[in-house]
Amino acid sequence: MIKKEEMPLCDVATTVQLVGSKWKLLIIRELISGSKRTSQLKRSLAGVSQKVLTESLSSMIDDGLVNRIELKKVPPHVEYQLTALGESFLPVIETMRQWGKYYKSQL
Amino acid sequence: MIKKEEMPLCDVATTVQLVGSKWKLLIIRELISGSKRTSQLKRSLAGVSQKVLTESLSSMIDDGLVNRIELKKVPPHVEYQLTALGESFLPVIETMRQWGKYYKSQL
Repeated sequence: MIKKEEMPLCDVATTVQLVGSKWKLLIIRELISGSKRTSQLKRSLAGVSQKVLTESLSSMIDDGLVNRIELKKVPPHVEYQLTALGESFLPVIETMRQWGKYYKSQL
Repeated sequence: MIKKEEMPLCDVATTVQLVGSKWKLLIIRELISGSKRTSQLKRSLAGVSQKVLTESLSSMIDDGLVNRIELKKVPPHVEYQLTALGESFLPVIETMRQWGKYYKSQL
């Protein structure tokens, strides 16, 4: 997790630094509906490479937005889940959803 | 401008496709306070290369978010300004600002 002193002074820039990438935003969108396995994320995020997906998840875990859960089921597997801090981002996704809809209505 | 049929079905993905990059988001943040010259944008967006700035502005013009204005002043120069569609993105920047503030308060 980045220390407070290392964050940009501007709050918008802070958000951009944390999630200002196509894949991170789409990962959050995917995790809104519940925890997901890597394979599920890869299927939903058409075009993402394994490397970028892994790096994005890893940096989101570091930043406290995503939890990595090891499930002791048969077969054991890993799922990713939004933390409470990650869930607090949902209003941003919601305004993005509204704006995307508005934009398309203007075409 | 992308045709409606070429837009992702998901409204969040539409927004991500249009402005889901660090620099585009920061360019919008900069243009909220009024039109800017390329040199002003470059100063405010620490670390952006000329190439990426030009490409980002050009794609935002194509997408109807930014206007390129040729000013016949002395010396003549070019400024970039949000269109009405670009300005309609401000609520998203505002929720990003609030979330960035909240995130920092949690560190």
